[in-house]
Amino acid sequence: MRIALLGGTGDIGQALALRWARDTDHEILVGSRDPERARGKAEEYETELDSVGVERTVKGFGNEMAADRADVVVLAVPAYHVRDTIESVADRITDADVLVTPAVGMKRDDDGFHYKPPKAGSVTELVADTAPDGVPVVGAFHNLSADRLANLDVELDLDTLVVGDNDDAVDIVVTLAEQIEGLRALSAGGIANAAEVEGLTPLLINIAMENEGMHDVGVKFE
Amino acid sequence: MRIALLGGTGDIGQALALRWARDTDHEILVGSRDPERARGKAEEYETELDSVGVERTVKGFGNEMAADRADVVVLAVPAYHVRDTIESVADRITDADVLVTPAVGMKRDDDGFHYKPPKAGSVTELVADTAPDGVPVVGAFHNLSADRLANLDVELDLDTLVVGDNDDAVDIVVTLAEQIEGLRALSAGGIANAAEVEGLTPLLINIAMENEGMHDVGVKFE
Repeated sequence: MRIALLGGTGDIGQALALRWARDTDHEILVGSRDPERARGKAEEYETELDSVGVERTVKGFGNEMAADRADVVVLAVPAYHVRDTIESVADRITDADVLVTPAVGMKRDDDGFHYKPPKAGSVTELVADTAPDGVPVVGAFHNLSADRLANLDVELDLDTLVVGDNDDAVDIVVTLAEQIEGLRALSAGGIANAAEVEGLTPLLINIAMENEGMHDVGVKFE
Repeated sequence: MRIALLGGTGDIGQALALRWARDTDHEILVGSRDPERARGKAEEYETELDSVGVERTVKGFGNEMAADRADVVVLAVPAYHVRDTIESVADRITDADVLVTPAVGMKRDDDGFHYKPPKAGSVTELVADTAPDGVPVVGAFHNLSADRLANLDVELDLDTLVVGDNDDAVDIVVTLAEQIEGLRALSAGGIANAAEVEGLTPLLINIAMENEGMHDVGVKFE
């Protein structure tokens, strides 16, 4: 399978690229608005993987080209770039692809982080509204610390939540998630339930800030 | 310490009463709008405790009397009864008490459960707005399955999140929570962060409904 990480030069893009490259045989395509930057980052990821004994090719492309070549397209961009990123690749994705969104809208104030969904109700619903008709959308990977995932020395034992209305697309993303060692994927239902999933991310950041030794905290449902 | 569970005849009230009665020496006061019902339930709890080898007195009172006698008052009532319950005991609680709120506002639709906070922003903020001036308010125990807690055969290994603006009151509730075997209390910050904590409850219910074997699911932050 070919996985494109649009905005794959950022934190969560890097984290997923490294884990999938290490733990699976899927082809990893790092996308960026700037193809040169994508190629540079892809090389960095190869070096990082090499340092843990994994010989792996990671390719960098402009977002359009990465989306065009991929079966699964991950929108690894901040919530405020989700819409323009989708629009920039809209003619490169079809209903045979899966569009994955890990982004969360948050605001910070003196008390901590708070969930701030877009008018659509959640970022996942915004993605579903913006994506070309028929392209299946799945929300996943919201509640993982990018720093923790990107550190390949850390063994994971965490859950991630998946929401989607297309069962086949959800199954693909659940499988991809669970191919990362130490990650379990749980369903949280349809896209209409995405707000509760996305709202977990500011909570995790608040817990990380308020409790000693909980930097990069994740979650297990038991 | 004396702990009053207002609405202590309901699910979460019963669960906390049984666990605190079994695991601590605190005096447990079951409150209800109907004192007779409170006394009946308190007797039931004693019988239940006796069946697991714990000889314990649990007393039942009207909510007003229970609140009057207690150091810690838990509003174990549904979100839509929080305001009238506080008003009914307002002249029985002082700034030397701690008011604890585990309630969450939710709505259910065809997709699942959704967080529906009151206008105050969260139930915890509503409690803080409604409580007499100076009475410290702490949000806690939102994300625990009452059925799981009420079954004393089940060993817990779960977290609960605590929010509050009064450090002494938070410390008291953290201690009370951790005196329940297998329960760890983590801070999620001040009351302004309560919405993200309460929003975890509908997520847990959605996960319980969507995944086999996850009935009564709880959470661990790791």
